[in-house]
Amino acid sequence: MIHPDSLWQDLTALRQKAPLVHNITNFVVMNVTANALLALGASPIMAHATEELGDLIGIASSLVLNIGTLDAAWIASMRQAACEATKRRIPIVLDPVGAGASRLRTETALALMEMGHPSILRANPSEILALAGASGVTKGVDSVNRPEEAEEAARELARSAKCVVVASGAVDFLTDGTTDVSVSGGSPLMPRITGMGCTASALVGAFAAVSASPLAAAVAGMGVMKVAAEMAAEKASGPGTQQVHFLDALHRLSQSDLAQRLQCA
Amino acid sequence: MIHPDSLWQDLTALRQKAPLVHNITNFVVMNVTANALLALGASPIMAHATEELGDLIGIASSLVLNIGTLDAAWIASMRQAACEATKRRIPIVLDPVGAGASRLRTETALALMEMGHPSILRANPSEILALAGASGVTKGVDSVNRPEEAEEAARELARSAKCVVVASGAVDFLTDGTTDVSVSGGSPLMPRITGMGCTASALVGAFAAVSASPLAAAVAGMGVMKVAAEMAAEKASGPGTQQVHFLDALHRLSQSDLAQRLQCA
Amino acid sequence: MIHPDSLWQDLTALRQKAPLVHNITNFVVMNVTANALLALGASPIMAHATEELGDLIGIASSLVLNIGTLDAAWIASMRQAACEATKRRIPIVLDPVGAGASRLRTETALALMEMGHPSILRANPSEILALAGASGVTKGVDSVNRPEEAEEAARELARSAKCVVVASGAVDFLTDGTTDVSVSGGSPLMPRITGMGCTASALVGAFAAVSASPLAAAVAGMGVMKVAAEMAAEKASGPGTQQVHFLDALHRLSQSDLAQRLQCA
Repeated sequence: MIHPDSLWQDLTALRQKAPLVHNITNFVVMNVTANALLALGASPIMAHATEELGDLIGIASSLVLNIGTLDAAWIASMRQAACEATKRRIPIVLDPVGAGASRLRTETALALMEMGHPSILRANPSEILALAGASGVTKGVDSVNRPEEAEEAARELARSAKCVVVASGAVDFLTDGTTDVSVSGGSPLMPRITGMGCTASALVGAFAAVSASPLAAAVAGMGVMKVAAEMAAEKASGPGTQQVHFLDALHRLSQSDLAQRLQCA
Repeated sequence: MIHPDSLWQDLTALRQKAPLVHNITNFVVMNVTANALLALGASPIMAHATEELGDLIGIASSLVLNIGTLDAAWIASMRQAACEATKRRIPIVLDPVGAGASRLRTETALALMEMGHPSILRANPSEILALAGASGVTKGVDSVNRPEEAEEAARELARSAKCVVVASGAVDFLTDGTTDVSVSGGSPLMPRITGMGCTASALVGAFAAVSASPLAAAVAGMGVMKVAAEMAAEKASGPGTQQVHFLDALHRLSQSDLAQRLQCA
Repeated sequence: MIHPDSLWQDLTALRQKAPLVHNITNFVVMNVTANALLALGASPIMAHATEELGDLIGIASSLVLNIGTLDAAWIASMRQAACEATKRRIPIVLDPVGAGASRLRTETALALMEMGHPSILRANPSEILALAGASGVTKGVDSVNRPEEAEEAARELARSAKCVVVASGAVDFLTDGTTDVSVSGGSPLMPRITGMGCTASALVGAFAAVSASPLAAAVAGMGVMKVAAEMAAEKASGPGTQQVHFLDALHRLSQSDLAQRLQCA
């Protein structure tokens, strides 16, 4: 669906423009997310004070919201950020971490979708099932269901929320409700590293600032994740070295790396 | 005291069951703790909102409380989490980071012990001395006293609090008040990396979900720390590479690694 | 201006005394900052609860304040910490992350300078321009302006605030208002890693506990950053491996490494 050359154009644009990606994300992954955005070529900012969100989102090119370690104060920040971004027509990516595992998470994610109208929702299959009202039984934030199980729920959610939905897994399933894309590749070490899903959401957010459509941005973000993870796996001997080489790979990702490795259908 | 084969059985059970370990821990170590749990084979969750602790601890197999960057709001979360875990008879591991260094920390740790009845307390010797009412003079959270100095205090604390106490150091001292175990090995680089103690507490928490007794869980957690640190040290040239190879080693830890390296008496 | 042997003396003193450096810093960099301080030889503590700052700063040798992920509660902590440190005549290093990007940040940084009288201000050129009242246009927290553009503003700020000002960049510019120092070297990968500026501020804070003057501490901190980054770059293949080897280099930094690599004029 997306040709490697088109992804390469988006990545080149991203590296040239270094778009400012505003993140309100969880404590666990702030550092790795910022590093992944920098390695890719974007400019991350992490800030949550309601007093300054107007100023900061005023200079941002996209907004990534992640509810991983939410509480009342951070929910208020995310709601305000969603408003500021909507007002300025800046694309929003939502990562509903743990939706389905607690009522607070499910309700917060749904409220952010209603008020923020995200361009892209990136989640694991159980979170998508939970949000789509299906009977998703989640086992914490690292539960890895098979994306196939969530395909129909993802399509329905995409249509009702008018956004691109990404169900990530060994093979990522992406849909805008009518067009479906799958992205495969990567490494089996990815689920053994915390925050790879959160990183994917952030990279999708960076592409949302430069790509032609939300679907193109989602494919580009998930595509570079898989390609960089595969490149890293060739040098890694476990999840520690995988993490380190993943950042190196994001940084040096070339046109021929994409041409040779991108598996997108 | 613990045979390597028995530890291997616990590790195998842990990798098969991937128990959900709920962590309320400090900002400094959230990422590395989650990664260590994933590398070992457990499923970490990090969440602190009082609105959702009932839901989340309802699906957890153990709870790890760490007061490293405590404040009033996080203390309230830890107290509620301790209640929820006690209600559900889920084992609690407490890491009283910096007890003795401030009145707030000493009092918070003691309050959590009283209300949560932790199965295991993992601390450095000065923290144990402080909690045992001895005149422990602590020099910040990285002070490394010799565990020998805290042995009697650890035994007394274990008896009065009816829990296993782990005093970690170059040689770890573990006791349930009657039986003592020592675990040695590891690497002199460990104290030059932040959060290795916090990681140890988390891994002990993971084993608490599968091991036959709190003492067995404590020995297993401290044992895999030492073995993985020793394996990592053979590839490391400093604290940066040590960290990375430590995660790799946790991930690939085999029965023969344990048989050859575990030093437990 | 600073001879490598003099820096070596400071580093040796630091490794012997392992000064306790109290940090109130942002969520993104807490882990890497703590690790860099440990790798250098200092003892980091990260704590922000107003109930315990009196106790903890009472045992600290220096204080590092970093406004990277500020909000009302953390500003209150930083203000109280600044008071406690001033009362005890402990040196303060201020890192005004993002000053100029929001009014909240500019005003918070200025308030902390007024009440805390920092010994050293470590910032990027745009932040210094903003604080000096010049028309700095900042593009998020990773904007890399050329330090040359901020030299005069840095000197004025140093004189009016009676502190050492460090404008970091490819060549760092340091001034106490009358004496200027430049430190060069390092690696072009440094701006592609989050928190290297925050790490620099923390290392400067560690040296502030042992060096003869704030200017000497600032030169020592920025000097070890550049030397360790250069050593790391020889082994790195991207920002991931650079980070890891940077910590290794800080840990093993020798007198001859400094003699051969320190570029300070």
